[in-house]
Amino acid sequence: LPATGLFTPIFVPDAMHDAVDDRAFLQAMLDAEAALALAQSGAGLIPAAAADAIAAAADRAGEFDLDAIGREARAAGNPVPALVRAIAAQVGGDGARYVHWGATSQDIVDTATMLVARRALDLIRADLDAVADACAALADRHRATPMAGRTLLQQALPVTLGLKAAGWLAGVGDAWSGLTAIAAQRLTAQLGGATGTLAAFGDDGLAVLRGFADELDLAEPILPWHTSRARVAELGAALAIAAGTLAKIALDVELMAQTEVGEAAEPAGDGRGGSSTLPHKRNPIGSTIVRACAMRVQAAAGVLIAALPQEHERAAGGWHAEWEPLREALALTGGAAAAAREVVQGIEFDPARMRANLDATGGLLMAEHVMLTLAAHVGRPAAMDAVKAASARAADGGGRLRDELLASGDVTAHLSADAIDAALDPAGYLGSAEAFVDRALDAYRSRA
Amino acid sequence: LPATGLFTPIFVPDAMHDAVDDRAFLQAMLDAEAALALAQSGAGLIPAAAADAIAAAADRAGEFDLDAIGREARAAGNPVPALVRAIAAQVGGDGARYVHWGATSQDIVDTATMLVARRALDLIRADLDAVADACAALADRHRATPMAGRTLLQQALPVTLGLKAAGWLAGVGDAWSGLTAIAAQRLTAQLGGATGTLAAFGDDGLAVLRGFADELDLAEPILPWHTSRARVAELGAALAIAAGTLAKIALDVELMAQTEVGEAAEPAGDGRGGSSTLPHKRNPIGSTIVRACAMRVQAAAGVLIAALPQEHERAAGGWHAEWEPLREALALTGGAAAAAREVVQGIEFDPARMRANLDATGGLLMAEHVMLTLAAHVGRPAAMDAVKAASARAADGGGRLRDELLASGDVTAHLSADAIDAALDPAGYLGSAEAFVDRALDAYRSRA
Amino acid sequence: LPATGLFTPIFVPDAMHDAVDDRAFLQAMLDAEAALALAQSGAGLIPAAAADAIAAAADRAGEFDLDAIGREARAAGNPVPALVRAIAAQVGGDGARYVHWGATSQDIVDTATMLVARRALDLIRADLDAVADACAALADRHRATPMAGRTLLQQALPVTLGLKAAGWLAGVGDAWSGLTAIAAQRLTAQLGGATGTLAAFGDDGLAVLRGFADELDLAEPILPWHTSRARVAELGAALAIAAGTLAKIALDVELMAQTEVGEAAEPAGDGRGGSSTLPHKRNPIGSTIVRACAMRVQAAAGVLIAALPQEHERAAGGWHAEWEPLREALALTGGAAAAAREVVQGIEFDPARMRANLDATGGLLMAEHVMLTLAAHVGRPAAMDAVKAASARAADGGGRLRDELLASGDVTAHLSADAIDAALDPAGYLGSAEAFVDRALDAYRSRA
Amino acid sequence: LPATGLFTPIFVPDAMHDAVDDRAFLQAMLDAEAALALAQSGAGLIPAAAADAIAAAADRAGEFDLDAIGREARAAGNPVPALVRAIAAQVGGDGARYVHWGATSQDIVDTATMLVARRALDLIRADLDAVADACAALADRHRATPMAGRTLLQQALPVTLGLKAAGWLAGVGDAWSGLTAIAAQRLTAQLGGATGTLAAFGDDGLAVLRGFADELDLAEPILPWHTSRARVAELGAALAIAAGTLAKIALDVELMAQTEVGEAAEPAGDGRGGSSTLPHKRNPIGSTIVRACAMRVQAAAGVLIAALPQEHERAAGGWHAEWEPLREALALTGGAAAAAREVVQGIEFDPARMRANLDATGGLLMAEHVMLTLAAHVGRPAAMDAVKAASARAADGGGRLRDELLASGDVTAHLSADAIDAALDPAGYLGSAEAFVDRALDAYRSRA
Repeated sequence: LPATGLFTPIFVPDAMHDAVDDRAFLQAMLDAEAALALAQSGAGLIPAAAADAIAAAADRAGEFDLDAIGREARAAGNPVPALVRAIAAQVGGDGARYVHWGATSQDIVDTATMLVARRALDLIRADLDAVADACAALADRHRATPMAGRTLLQQALPVTLGLKAAGWLAGVGDAWSGLTAIAAQRLTAQLGGATGTLAAFGDDGLAVLRGFADELDLAEPILPWHTSRARVAELGAALAIAAGTLAKIALDVELMAQTEVGEAAEPAGDGRGGSSTLPHKRNPIGSTIVRACAMRVQAAAGVLIAALPQEHERAAGGWHAEWEPLREALALTGGAAAAAREVVQGIEFDPARMRANLDATGGLLMAEHVMLTLAAHVGRPAAMDAVKAASARAADGGGRLRDELLASGDVTAHLSADAIDAALDPAGYLGSAEAFVDRALDAYRSRA
Repeated sequence: LPATGLFTPIFVPDAMHDAVDDRAFLQAMLDAEAALALAQSGAGLIPAAAADAIAAAADRAGEFDLDAIGREARAAGNPVPALVRAIAAQVGGDGARYVHWGATSQDIVDTATMLVARRALDLIRADLDAVADACAALADRHRATPMAGRTLLQQALPVTLGLKAAGWLAGVGDAWSGLTAIAAQRLTAQLGGATGTLAAFGDDGLAVLRGFADELDLAEPILPWHTSRARVAELGAALAIAAGTLAKIALDVELMAQTEVGEAAEPAGDGRGGSSTLPHKRNPIGSTIVRACAMRVQAAAGVLIAALPQEHERAAGGWHAEWEPLREALALTGGAAAAAREVVQGIEFDPARMRANLDATGGLLMAEHVMLTLAAHVGRPAAMDAVKAASARAADGGGRLRDELLASGDVTAHLSADAIDAALDPAGYLGSAEAFVDRALDAYRSRA
Repeated sequence: LPATGLFTPIFVPDAMHDAVDDRAFLQAMLDAEAALALAQSGAGLIPAAAADAIAAAADRAGEFDLDAIGREARAAGNPVPALVRAIAAQVGGDGARYVHWGATSQDIVDTATMLVARRALDLIRADLDAVADACAALADRHRATPMAGRTLLQQALPVTLGLKAAGWLAGVGDAWSGLTAIAAQRLTAQLGGATGTLAAFGDDGLAVLRGFADELDLAEPILPWHTSRARVAELGAALAIAAGTLAKIALDVELMAQTEVGEAAEPAGDGRGGSSTLPHKRNPIGSTIVRACAMRVQAAAGVLIAALPQEHERAAGGWHAEWEPLREALALTGGAAAAAREVVQGIEFDPARMRANLDATGGLLMAEHVMLTLAAHVGRPAAMDAVKAASARAADGGGRLRDELLASGDVTAHLSADAIDAALDPAGYLGSAEAFVDRALDAYRSRA
Repeated sequence: LPATGLFTPIFVPDAMHDAVDDRAFLQAMLDAEAALALAQSGAGLIPAAAADAIAAAADRAGEFDLDAIGREARAAGNPVPALVRAIAAQVGGDGARYVHWGATSQDIVDTATMLVARRALDLIRADLDAVADACAALADRHRATPMAGRTLLQQALPVTLGLKAAGWLAGVGDAWSGLTAIAAQRLTAQLGGATGTLAAFGDDGLAVLRGFADELDLAEPILPWHTSRARVAELGAALAIAAGTLAKIALDVELMAQTEVGEAAEPAGDGRGGSSTLPHKRNPIGSTIVRACAMRVQAAAGVLIAALPQEHERAAGGWHAEWEPLREALALTGGAAAAAREVVQGIEFDPARMRANLDATGGLLMAEHVMLTLAAHVGRPAAMDAVKAASARAADGGGRLRDELLASGDVTAHLSADAIDAALDPAGYLGSAEAFVDRALDAYRSRA
């Protein structure tokens, strides 16, 4: 993750970047080393003065040369040995030898990862919350705004815009819940020493582990999880599902924003999505970013799942493969959430255009409703025959269903023109749409 | 999923195959159609006689020509229309017209998928349970059996076989919990009609939905989820994580079973893993199958996550892409669990070989412990110097550390030969290994 | 791959299914065993009578109980040992002992896989050829048919339908070339014996290898490739790229077929894509199938690439993971190609609707052309100012650009109404569209 | 890709990083803009002075504020509009208006991507070349060095180290060829304007396209490929296959380097792979890095394949998803190649240990050879019976096969002790191993 760059700002908001970038990770590793020393001091394993000196050094992140540590990291295959040397140099004297004592590099990297993930998840969850809020408002406001429901990209039966937004809300709510559960239960400290026995701590291993986790306010794992990586894979999967859920919203917005559909437009401001040479364009840039982020998060999550089978007590490849993809999954899910937030908070809908599009089939969209209405009078078989015939004539001739129905004695014998018009009104054939909106809103409101 | 075949039986047990194959799926679709009719009858929408006739037909799965339905499925892009025609033909008379009334094909396919998933998850969870039981027994029995801990495939510090098994147990326990939570909360009925409004049911949509879910003993969703696919993706991810967790066990077994390591052997019986021309071989076939299954489940889960962004009210590709991968993920996770069960239930360990392997480095594996022991007398810096020197001489000369320690005045000035031997004993440097085993066992036992 | 089924026929045509199903694979394994015996006989290693008896038995595939072989396959982890026993039983007598002599199971499975792949690739390439032919015809016929070009799903500048079809053609042509190159160069026989040395054949190993490959008309590899799996991964990747290329066509078709766009419709026939209750719908089922297939082929290819790192002389998981995904990738790419063929051969375009859609922005789509036309008189800065102002007025007021241009003195001072109309004509601003069509057609025609 | 960082240097060498980082990409975009202007000037479309001024500005990359361009990129969804403004500011005056004239952002980004890919592929191919050279030398030197061949991680029959290295060589050679073919044929310029018609260039589109490609020494595409992304996917797949091929070598090295196997050790130098507290460890860090890189490249390639179906003339998500994964795939394949180069160039083998490991089964590894030797005297059935019996006694009793053979009258009746010893010598049962080595070396040497 670059500190800055040409492309990163397109996808990752600054706050998210700050939460997961290398400087944040360095600080998280320093926090882990400090917590280790303090826990050891608490257990009487190392002098309090040494622990304090280590903790003090760890608070001065600015003193550490991140790039130098990175360059030295290549030899060991991870940055911790170089970091330990740098901390020891800062601590100096007798305390230096207690830095990282009894721990293994993976203890520090995994713990730092969990700290970084926690902070990133806070940001993601806040943006998901905002997306959900905006969806809830849309669902409420447009609960009865009719629009064409579309299946396989063909108009099918009417829905309401509120029902569509309620669907988005339910998805985002589930994604939020999934990530919240992981944040609460699966972000655990890591401490096991070289092979997960905490051998160097003698009988005090569990006490140090508890103290370490407490210092960092992370959950304490039952066992070291150096090669039990389900936590990481679960986090990755939940992020990919969250991003994919946002991408469904984005895809719907892109489709509604098509020139020929014209039912929605992304917020404009700040030249976003405009084109200097194509004055009519309002590109759905936010949705585009959401979808692009989601594709990449999925790939990153795939690495984390593929890396689950790790060898013995510490892996020879799988663990190293996790580092960047996990941070990337966090950053890009954050990017998707932030972009989706901008989209749904500022989206402009055009209910008139929705209504006009409902008429695109000349009434054929409502044929089922006409049939059901007529069936109350003549039974379903006869109603089906009469309406199919009228529909076929309308479809073949390019005319309107209303005209063909009015021209059909089989129909007009039972339905007045007003009754036909009522049956053709999309707003009259919305079934449980509003009830579903209420259910989604109730579920969302009762979540907190 | 083939009814039979050349390769499928290698990976998928018969019971699992029966639970997810096309015949099972056909029955699940019939169950869904029956439940729909009964729910509609309960809501007064269709005659009870029609519902009963539909339910009766749905109970006679043997009457349906699965292959014919499959052949007809191509035109519609899914098997439901052909199935509906076949049911209607079975029902006959007036009742025929009420088959599938007001529903959409996806209502039936998605609901059937959930029914199939439930049954498959029962099997998977039972096998995971058995794996966990076996791991728990191994952890308990071998809590103090020392073996080399290995990091990056190099011997590092001793662990116990029990600790390794406890790690497996914790992983399997988490996988079981993840799938159990999904089985309890995320297997919901699907019913929305063409665009998710239940329009055809007028004001009775919610009542029909409730009755439908109740008939099938599935959870009732807040909304139709035709294009809100997180349930499916979550299930896929949990299966991939479960399979990957089993693959970690399998990988450990394969590595321990290597000819040169010889610490474990898969159960033999039934010619399994033997080779007629290579009499010494006991191939780890079970573990091999677990790993192969896990790779494929991951890919299947990837499809389910990639398919999350589905268009509008019903998708034009993403949904169709889910069908086979989801069943494949179920079947192959089941295959991995069944194979892992055979492996861990019958695995033969060789503690003597473990002990011999611990000596492979001529004692260097214990250098850290010697250093810590000596440090109690001379402080860590001096101890580090003395032990490093002895270790270097042992490593360079190919000798044993014990001899070099006994030859070092810096060491023998403070440690007797007995003390040196004690420091060199792997069983004396296991830290919290047994305590961790207890924690894992406690967590497992308190799960139920 | 099921022999029949509920879902498979939706995706996989019968001919493709027959080419890759378990019976085809069994025959391919029999062919490999026969070729092995004949090659050994040719090298004087086994009696000619034995080879003839083995070859004769291998020709009687109907005598073999595929399901029984599959059931027995579980113990060995692959079907070859059971197959060898079955062949030996057919051969009987003295010849039985020469069945499979000196070979390893993987020799037979890998070779059979290549035989199956060759046959499947023939089918896929034929369908890709047909897709390309149809695209070429479309490109030629519609080289000058204007339609809206769309970027980020917004109308941008005009293109021609022929240019769009030429893009499809170029993609399909590349996919065909990629698969053709693999079929010609990378489908090699596999023969190495247990560890790739052909040890059992003494000094005759290379002769047997050559004879074996010749018998099967497969290329001879430089080395056994038991754990050098690039061939398989390359095939998988080429299939995924072919399927993804077809999915781009399918996606374009789905988007053009949207109710609100209406520029294309998939062929109807055989009730395909229709809906009994929604009379206006013509679902793009073929395109939907293409896209679903492509998603699954990608996942299958991912397994093949992930399986590349295989252990030592034969793998403990990675190889087993390849079997089904490779056949699935073949079958589903074949399915995508067959469905795409149906789509592009029968697709109905509506040039009038394309022309109408070009007017959806009230002329704004042509603003750039008007600006360039005016710039010839007043320079680009002034032209830009004038046209931007007119465009802004049109966009804000919802009017037509033509009216605003005619109302602008800065414009009418230099351009007559006719000149303005010419500048607003999409057919007049198509740049190199036709020239590109010619290039694509030339490249396609010169391919053969 | 970070300019520097904590983790990147572990995986990506500096030279590779410099080739693909944001500064390199910025320069490549500047090169593309310069080439565009020069080509337009060449075609008489813009003044030569303007083109020269643009080219001059593009040569002063240091004048451009990369971070500022990145920050502005978010609004447009790509960095080109901001870059164009920055170039125009540098050019100033009349020439400024000709910057980027008639092009679309994707023309510049795609072309820059190809320029970056070309440079990165040069580095990757050079490292693959070095890997191949080292493998060839190993294959040659160790053509007859016997070692255990291993299948499913069990010892099977002997091979030679040279044969193993020849297998590596063949794989790397294929990977090199694949990438070389792509570098030669598939790195094409991109120029199409907004919708791929080059409309703004009137009749000069093809001339400008040719000039543009020539300026950059890139191949000229038949058509613009804004949404024909097979080139990108093919490159990604070839990179993933190259990285996976290297990971197979790395996995073999890790397995041979296991403490209990001890047949290989990675080069030490620079503290690489050492452990201060575990003096005996020589971690296979290089191989670990190769494997980790390969897992990530596979995921990146997956994004590129998944992104193939792009909408109409320019995509709303898929294209944006490609940018970072493609550069990541290049960088990490480069990282894998560089690490693999270090490994194979410096690897230390232990032939004595290989020989000792060959004896791990007490001769059972050679049972097949003894049987074949005896069969020359008594026929295969009797030989099989005698050797199986002896093998079973050896395996059950833990004794050596040689002793059991000498104790078997059925054996000693036909084979002397010397003959038995010869049959038990791994070096005498290597089949075509050396011939295969020669074939691999010949193929490699004839490649150039």
